[in-house]
Amino acid sequence: MPRTVWKASYGPNAIPRAVCSPGRAGLPAVSVFDQATAVRRVGEGRYEVRPDDRFAIAGAVNGGVLMASMLRAVLDTAPHPYPIATSAHFLRAPRPEPAQAEVSWLKQGKVAATARATLVQDGRPVLETTVTTGALGDPADTVGLSWTGEPPGLPPIEDCRGARDAPHRVFSGYAKQVDLRLDPATAGWTRGQPDGVPEMRGYFQLAEERDPDALMLALAVDSLPPVVFGLEVVGWSPTVELTWYMRAVPAPGPLRVAARCRHVSGGWFDEQAEVWDSAGHLVAQSHQIALVGRG
Amino acid sequence: MPRTVWKASYGPNAIPRAVCSPGRAGLPAVSVFDQATAVRRVGEGRYEVRPDDRFAIAGAVNGGVLMASMLRAVLDTAPHPYPIATSAHFLRAPRPEPAQAEVSWLKQGKVAATARATLVQDGRPVLETTVTTGALGDPADTVGLSWTGEPPGLPPIEDCRGARDAPHRVFSGYAKQVDLRLDPATAGWTRGQPDGVPEMRGYFQLAEERDPDALMLALAVDSLPPVVFGLEVVGWSPTVELTWYMRAVPAPGPLRVAARCRHVSGGWFDEQAEVWDSAGHLVAQSHQIALVGRG
Repeated sequence: MPRTVWKASYGPNAIPRAVCSPGRAGLPAVSVFDQATAVRRVGEGRYEVRPDDRFAIAGAVNGGVLMASMLRAVLDTAPHPYPIATSAHFLRAPRPEPAQAEVSWLKQGKVAATARATLVQDGRPVLETTVTTGALGDPADTVGLSWTGEPPGLPPIEDCRGARDAPHRVFSGYAKQVDLRLDPATAGWTRGQPDGVPEMRGYFQLAEERDPDALMLALAVDSLPPVVFGLEVVGWSPTVELTWYMRAVPAPGPLRVAARCRHVSGGWFDEQAEVWDSAGHLVAQSHQIALVGRG
Repeated sequence: MPRTVWKASYGPNAIPRAVCSPGRAGLPAVSVFDQATAVRRVGEGRYEVRPDDRFAIAGAVNGGVLMASMLRAVLDTAPHPYPIATSAHFLRAPRPEPAQAEVSWLKQGKVAATARATLVQDGRPVLETTVTTGALGDPADTVGLSWTGEPPGLPPIEDCRGARDAPHRVFSGYAKQVDLRLDPATAGWTRGQPDGVPEMRGYFQLAEERDPDALMLALAVDSLPPVVFGLEVVGWSPTVELTWYMRAVPAPGPLRVAARCRHVSGGWFDEQAEVWDSAGHLVAQSHQIALVGRG
């Protein structure tokens, strides 16, 4: 199979091309994120996806990267530019081997179009998504009803703790690909002293130079450590369902992410996250339910 | 078709039987809600559903009632008792005529099992849902990590404004079936004076006597008027996507529902709601994205 077909593909949508540093031959290199989320069309509504262990956490490929792959497949034939609402039920952890995305359109409307997209590996569904695409207004547009709540309070990025500041750590997988800087107010758990509230805030960008877009928002919404780490570090907390809404096209620069939890009980916890861009706009919102980790 | 098959059906799940006042013959009557959400199994993974215009708003059957019907179909063959996470993409308004629910299981796990359930009418999908079922711990159980945020502030129910208190109104459809009492602090719009914040709070129960359960929570999560009415009354605001999480089995009695919005822009708004039961437990959370109404 020729290697070039694995370059990031862009459908008829407004997702900007990745901003990358030039490759060795002076041609633009494709970022690791764009490589990891690339899809290859193999038939009508059928795409090949390669879950990429360069974004794995404890052996499982990050769910945001998988969602971004599914969005590439959906946007390839979408009549609208943006994934307004993406619901994802995580069924099984895929192996880092080829998988298939199966896309079928349930509605093609003027304002909204909805597709079901299933990631299948070894004949079994591993991730079930439903995506409603649409258009987004200009956030500076004052026509029509407009209102936004208070943005999250975050100290300047230079006062935030980067995971890379931690000594003695060997970075691999997901942790190597992202540049996450936690608000010290929610980073007590990194010193073995959880802050007592299930909240997490920080700045998020990729380790490589690449501007945020809809695909990166799919990663950003679940980029922080689990909010329950603010109560007690309880190990891997698998997301069972995550829904996210794209609210605006993000400006270049680091994203501010703020997550909170409302209820931990019976082995389940919820997490609500907001993503704000460097221009101060709310660009994404997400909600997930996850299992409290053990050990 | 014999009429009796349209009684509410209950699968092998822990949804309690409806509490109804006795029927004329001394037998327990089936509540209007249970009639409206009843499903009839017509094949493997296939159910007949009757969208019921007794729960219609401006001609469209309430989405919560449709979700409850889909949950009945899913729970009929679920290995777990509760719908932990339900994602719903609303595609088209069904007519009040028979429709088909098609259920297929994507995963049957010990902790979680996920089904896709599509409501189809005239060969077209009208509502696409994905439901992850599971078990819920006892909220009083102190084993394991447990934490809950502050409950919403609501005045006593007797100080809240019932829609039924409004003079000159003729109640029909959804408004006739529910007993909703709004917190005066979020009811200014009913007097033509929106309160200036996109929030809505109130007590919710059915007009008939029936205890809350998982099915009623599907209705409760979107039972309040659109939060944007707090900014400006903008007419019908169709929900495009709604996800809700069941967090505990509700105690009998009126439910407290609190909803807020974080962002209105480009014709879209989000709404996050919490449902608390009469015993003070957080029993459900929902998030939706909707179109700002026009006229």
